[in-house]
Amino acid sequence: MEIDVQKGLLAANERLAQENRSLFARSGLFVVNIMSGPGAGKTTLLERTCETLAARLNIAVIEGDLQTSEDAERIAAKGVHAVQINTGGGCHLDAKMVQGALKSFDLDALDLLIIENVGNLVCPAAFDLGESARVMLLSTPEGDEKPIKYPLMFTRSQLLIINKMDLLDYVDFDVKRVEGYAKKINPGIEIITVSAKTGEGMEGWYGWLTGKLEKKS
Amino acid sequence: MEIDVQKGLLAANERLAQENRSLFARSGLFVVNIMSGPGAGKTTLLERTCETLAARLNIAVIEGDLQTSEDAERIAAKGVHAVQINTGGGCHLDAKMVQGALKSFDLDALDLLIIENVGNLVCPAAFDLGESARVMLLSTPEGDEKPIKYPLMFTRSQLLIINKMDLLDYVDFDVKRVEGYAKKINPGIEIITVSAKTGEGMEGWYGWLTGKLEKKS
Repeated sequence: MEIDVQKGLLAANERLAQENRSLFARSGLFVVNIMSGPGAGKTTLLERTCETLAARLNIAVIEGDLQTSEDAERIAAKGVHAVQINTGGGCHLDAKMVQGALKSFDLDALDLLIIENVGNLVCPAAFDLGESARVMLLSTPEGDEKPIKYPLMFTRSQLLIINKMDLLDYVDFDVKRVEGYAKKINPGIEIITVSAKTGEGMEGWYGWLTGKLEKKS
Repeated sequence: MEIDVQKGLLAANERLAQENRSLFARSGLFVVNIMSGPGAGKTTLLERTCETLAARLNIAVIEGDLQTSEDAERIAAKGVHAVQINTGGGCHLDAKMVQGALKSFDLDALDLLIIENVGNLVCPAAFDLGESARVMLLSTPEGDEKPIKYPLMFTRSQLLIINKMDLLDYVDFDVKRVEGYAKKINPGIEIITVSAKTGEGMEGWYGWLTGKLEKKS
């Protein structure tokens, strides 16, 4: 019974995700769904991204959290239009929640919409939001065995950003080991290493993003 | 509809949790449900705990993960009976899964059963397993705003273990700020700081555990 209910929810979500996808296509908008466990540094990455790219790109952000509007405020402080979705107890965003938030934006005027999902390495991977690309963060203190323990997230992501490289000397984390595991699960996954805190390696992420945008236009 | 289904699942879970609780009471067994986000250090904490306490206590461990039996093997290497539950895609343990795993143990012979939940700061908090106490880990690299962003986990836990204190000098994490937030959400919550990696502060955790066991017997 539980599985049927889950299948029904996913099928309903898929229909709305397709609606979102059509809407994004009509506006020529590139949409990134950013996922990770709690505290991997999604918001810090986005703060720096907005700071750096907002002068040349029209960016908007949707922030997903169980509670609070702290993350949307951090992004808005960078001069970028940010809308907060509070899921209540919900452990992931779904296509319907995103559809509701889209009303806040003039999609035709945007180049890039970034959706920061709820901090959770499991459920967000199962819910399509209609995005153009899925990006996941893994931070070095979380450990290098995560691809084999949370495979769906790694399967579904086009880009893996390994964050908190500034802590690499203080934690047990072998970048090569993660790359090996991730590529075994998802041979097509691209991988870049950054420190969103210090800025190290961030050009790789900006390059990936702007490459996708150029392909689109 | 989605909410009714969720309510039904939780009610069914609660009945099985009560069965587990009765079973634990009949065996005079103390059962701890340990929860955290991915990579906060639950398994490292348990490895050290088993190493230190297994000589004087009869301990068993249930390991919850989406996939792999890596964690159960790490615990078994410490000479403690460990059973792995793989949830498939499931983002939390439930009372039924735990009930299934209990068949592997002679409950009357045990002093302490530790259940390591799936790495997830959201859903595990909603599912009673019949445990005697709920303990959560928050690691310093995850950030000090987590209590206000994931309040249910902090509300439901009797003990908050702040882990990875060895990284405190390298991350932005104010212990007092976390304590303030956590106590505001759950005034009764106890808080200890440790590094499961270096062993710093672990006596506080052992003291908490053995205190609960003495109260019980």
